[in-house]
Amino acid sequence: MTAARDRLDRLRLSLLVEPGDTRLCSLLGTYRPGEIVAALHADGQLGGTPLPEPWRVRAARTADDNDEARAVLLTARQQAMRWVCPGDSEWPDGLGDLDLVRPINQSRGAPLGLWVRGRLRLAAALERSVAVVGARDATTYGCEVAGDLAADLADDGITVVSGAAYGIDSCAHRGALALQGPTVAVLACGADVDYPRAHSGLLARIADQGLVVSEQPPGQTPTKGRFLTRNRLIAALSRGTVVVEAARRSGALNTLNWAAEIGRVAMGVPGPVTSQASVGVHQSLRSGQSVLVTSGAEVIEAVGEIGRFDATLPGAPATDYDTLPEAMKVVLEAVPAGIAATAETIAATVPCAVEDSRTVLEVLAERGWVQAVEGGWRLARRADLSVGRLPRTVTT
Amino acid sequence: MTAARDRLDRLRLSLLVEPGDTRLCSLLGTYRPGEIVAALHADGQLGGTPLPEPWRVRAARTADDNDEARAVLLTARQQAMRWVCPGDSEWPDGLGDLDLVRPINQSRGAPLGLWVRGRLRLAAALERSVAVVGARDATTYGCEVAGDLAADLADDGITVVSGAAYGIDSCAHRGALALQGPTVAVLACGADVDYPRAHSGLLARIADQGLVVSEQPPGQTPTKGRFLTRNRLIAALSRGTVVVEAARRSGALNTLNWAAEIGRVAMGVPGPVTSQASVGVHQSLRSGQSVLVTSGAEVIEAVGEIGRFDATLPGAPATDYDTLPEAMKVVLEAVPAGIAATAETIAATVPCAVEDSRTVLEVLAERGWVQAVEGGWRLARRADLSVGRLPRTVTT
Repeated sequence: MTAARDRLDRLRLSLLVEPGDTRLCSLLGTYRPGEIVAALHADGQLGGTPLPEPWRVRAARTADDNDEARAVLLTARQQAMRWVCPGDSEWPDGLGDLDLVRPINQSRGAPLGLWVRGRLRLAAALERSVAVVGARDATTYGCEVAGDLAADLADDGITVVSGAAYGIDSCAHRGALALQGPTVAVLACGADVDYPRAHSGLLARIADQGLVVSEQPPGQTPTKGRFLTRNRLIAALSRGTVVVEAARRSGALNTLNWAAEIGRVAMGVPGPVTSQASVGVHQSLRSGQSVLVTSGAEVIEAVGEIGRFDATLPGAPATDYDTLPEAMKVVLEAVPAGIAATAETIAATVPCAVEDSRTVLEVLAERGWVQAVEGGWRLARRADLSVGRLPRTVTT
Repeated sequence: MTAARDRLDRLRLSLLVEPGDTRLCSLLGTYRPGEIVAALHADGQLGGTPLPEPWRVRAARTADDNDEARAVLLTARQQAMRWVCPGDSEWPDGLGDLDLVRPINQSRGAPLGLWVRGRLRLAAALERSVAVVGARDATTYGCEVAGDLAADLADDGITVVSGAAYGIDSCAHRGALALQGPTVAVLACGADVDYPRAHSGLLARIADQGLVVSEQPPGQTPTKGRFLTRNRLIAALSRGTVVVEAARRSGALNTLNWAAEIGRVAMGVPGPVTSQASVGVHQSLRSGQSVLVTSGAEVIEAVGEIGRFDATLPGAPATDYDTLPEAMKVVLEAVPAGIAATAETIAATVPCAVEDSRTVLEVLAERGWVQAVEGGWRLARRADLSVGRLPRTVTT
């Protein structure tokens, strides 16, 4: 069986089975996706046991689902979406953790694959990532905190993952976008569906600057169950999850549960005890499920502490920082991480001439430390981490 | 040596030595207060070692400090203050814990005695007590939370201890007073000194309804050092300490340190992470020094869990609740804990006539369950706990 065949089989199966179905997770422990699809199109039995009826009903609707799968791929490609599967170079680590845990809300298991919209490579974008989630009916306080937190994380080169919902989610995405940081929206509907409709502009910006991701086939609409199922992906695709505001039974707590369950760092931002929007967060903090964080720096500390952020990034600059000449270090440390600065601005803060700074910047760019962007220079995304760990004098 | 002699010796020594002096704490491990006073009035040496110079200087100022001590006692009595010492029936438990710990801010040790203003018995008032402290420059949020928290605690028959300072402290006292709950102000100046001056009315109400307490001799003024020394008493006189707002270096954190150090329950109320007034609380919560609480119920749970609140109070009603006739239970449960209600009001919520209710209330009063107060009837303070543990239908 070729990898291409497996990718298509996964897509075919994803069109027949609702994501997060615990029965699928169990079957995939024994059978390949192609075997399950074949059985659904044959007598609906596998190993002498009938497969779930909803799957068989869906399979009965399509005579030849190979064609349907190819049609979906074609449509998706026209909408700049791609199907990413286990084994693909951009398939992120850690989703397999979802196969090893108890179901939450009758859901568990790694996705068969992910639909991805956007130019970044999925695995690279998620290498250093934190989910920032929270209540839809957030308060002004929560929105400001989520935005600031996301901006701080983006400024440190961390990808902000969220669910593109009203309230905290959208503030988190916007905070990251404001710092030109990559941000990943994980949807409960198809990656091509603008939900909520009012966020179509936001989703377009996310797809442009980051990634829009879903395990739902293109065109699928969101349901309450799919939001809960989607939450497991937000948790699993991130190194840690921060909940900013959550009322007593908020769905954001579901994401936090997933994060804790699969061994990610679960974090909560406190708020006024007089605010119903913070009650769920405080409960989680009191129970010890999550740790209290009040800033991006504390989030990074919490996630970094347990080694969730690797010291060496794939594609990190080949030249070690320590080997750089002192004069180059001085210039490098003056390059902002989040926003672009002109060579003149950078030179103003270091003891060398503008022309010298420009030369140094060009060398640093060749070596992958900085990049020329519209409006000047900024730290290369992949250099952020290493520089972030230095005694920083970076003006951002 | 008689107890009366020891009480006077303690007073004499308290006039010569600054409270919380770690050297005093050490000496009292070996010598009686009278021996130290005698040495200070003789050659200033004890066991061949010179006693601290400031003590000797103070001793040199008074030829016969017996007279001075008696004069202080007389003046204090005229101001309705009394000198309470170890061995006295109202001396509270637990102050000895201050002898067993490392100094904080160069201070440690149980007080030689306490000056007390107010009608309640000190030990009884502190039997179930929680300190509610916090920033002087509190926010509106902090003040409201402190007041509500103190009212909730008072409503549950818990004595609110604080420092009568501006901000959180005064809100805590006022919250307790609003529910006619006893509250104890522990001052850094003499118990007869109104500090801050603007709180003279508040302190008068506290002395009327609760207690004003200090280890400083009457007339002493507060200093920065005395505030820090006083904080150890707030912590030690309470079963637990809650800090409501505290900036990064707030004195309220000093009280929390003391509470943690001497094994009391240290608690913190979170606030907006955008508020400087909550930064110190969040730091304490993050470090694990204190536990997060958001309500009076959670405070009571935290303090109760480690057995800090005894199930049987001294002076608790002799008749067991379970032995009460059902009709009396019904009336008892309709009596408010915090405020007085007329027999008519109480009767309106129970299935019996006003006159019957009145008769039942009189019997309940005889047995110590309720008390007749201005405006009607309320739960006897000492009955609060037992009733508080029942499935309550009390309207308060």
